[in-house]
Amino acid sequence: MTTAPALEDSTEQDCCTPAVTSVLDAQTAHQRARTFKALADPNRLRLLSIVKAGSLNGTCVCDLTEPLELGQPTVSHHLKILVDAGFLAREKRGTWAFYSMVPGALDAVTETLLGL
Amino acid sequence: MTTAPALEDSTEQDCCTPAVTSVLDAQTAHQRARTFKALADPNRLRLLSIVKAGSLNGTCVCDLTEPLELGQPTVSHHLKILVDAGFLAREKRGTWAFYSMVPGALDAVTETLLGL
Repeated sequence: MTTAPALEDSTEQDCCTPAVTSVLDAQTAHQRARTFKALADPNRLRLLSIVKAGSLNGTCVCDLTEPLELGQPTVSHHLKILVDAGFLAREKRGTWAFYSMVPGALDAVTETLLGL
Repeated sequence: MTTAPALEDSTEQDCCTPAVTSVLDAQTAHQRARTFKALADPNRLRLLSIVKAGSLNGTCVCDLTEPLELGQPTVSHHLKILVDAGFLAREKRGTWAFYSMVPGALDAVTETLLGL
């Protein structure tokens, strides 16, 4: 997740349509939308909530299925999206995978919002 | 958009599964996911960016189609989602509708993130 400036400098100033020169470019908008899409699911928000409240050493995937009343494949699917989006880190220990928050990941999203 | 506490108090403390008692409840998770879903689209992020950078008196819908290279119906569809999610306010003046940021709306999302 990057926090690139939302407002692009323009070499051509047009006094009558200032908003047009400030539009978020398409590529950056796509990247940011992908981040928000990872958060746009109630089960993924609940998973983040559990992991955030859990041990700093990580929360075992075996403790994530019961509170959500979802099957292991569904939980794993949502966890993969959260890992790919940079919110969660995954560490395999023996049989189980443990998930922990990526430090600063939520802060980066808030900066993205404020930088819109 | 509310900023209800993410961590629910539990009357039953279970030392072995602390994360379970902290899970975001399903209803709150659904509400928050809907907010993030409104942000999970590149065109909506670009619209927010333009309106945020525009006049405090609002940006005419007639100035929102060209920078996004989208048709009026598509832009209106996205604007309605942003209004319904509480990010934009809509004011009709004569023929045109003008859109402005709802004060504090983005701040409320950042509080939601930090309160996960």
